[in-house]
Amino acid sequence: MEREFVEGIGIVAGCCTTASFVPQVVRTWRTRSVADISLRMYLLLCLGVSLWLVYGALIGSPAVLLANAVTLLLAAAILVMKLVFGRGSAHSSGRRTP
Amino acid sequence: MEREFVEGIGIVAGCCTTASFVPQVVRTWRTRSVADISLRMYLLLCLGVSLWLVYGALIGSPAVLLANAVTLLLAAAILVMKLVFGRGSAHSSGRRTP
Repeated sequence: MEREFVEGIGIVAGCCTTASFVPQVVRTWRTRSVADISLRMYLLLCLGVSLWLVYGALIGSPAVLLANAVTLLLAAAILVMKLVFGRGSAHSSGRRTP
Repeated sequence: MEREFVEGIGIVAGCCTTASFVPQVVRTWRTRSVADISLRMYLLLCLGVSLWLVYGALIGSPAVLLANAVTLLLAAAILVMKLVFGRGSAHSSGRRTP
């Protein structure tokens, strides 16, 4: 199969997985409600995406660097909102992570 | 730098990003509460990860295939819980996606 076609699928895949965090950022920003979002998920995700950034830098891949830089921004935004908006309700709801 | 070290970082990165969805699956299964989770995020994520699976198959990469197969299972589990647990409260809360 054409190399360009295969790489095109990879690019579309990367755009979808990176862009998937946008609706969550928008929803969380609008509702200010974070009780159902797992803190541990976004801690682990930010760590993993940061390591992908390091990996992309080490292998010299602009695609890996760009996709993961954008994903890290979005995932970090959700993590910060989880921490900030969840501060008030953490005790009252009695909910615990995960 | 050693090739094995660089690839090791990639493997740890992949393990972190894939495993990050586990706490969200556990939390959502326990609480049955999905109001704060974006349906569009998990629709787009499942589409993107499915395309990564196709890409992994086309380039013949067992690592890409394995990581994305596990991620798809976890993301699809969250998507199904969002649809099933969210059914009852969708109308009463008046909330809309994203």
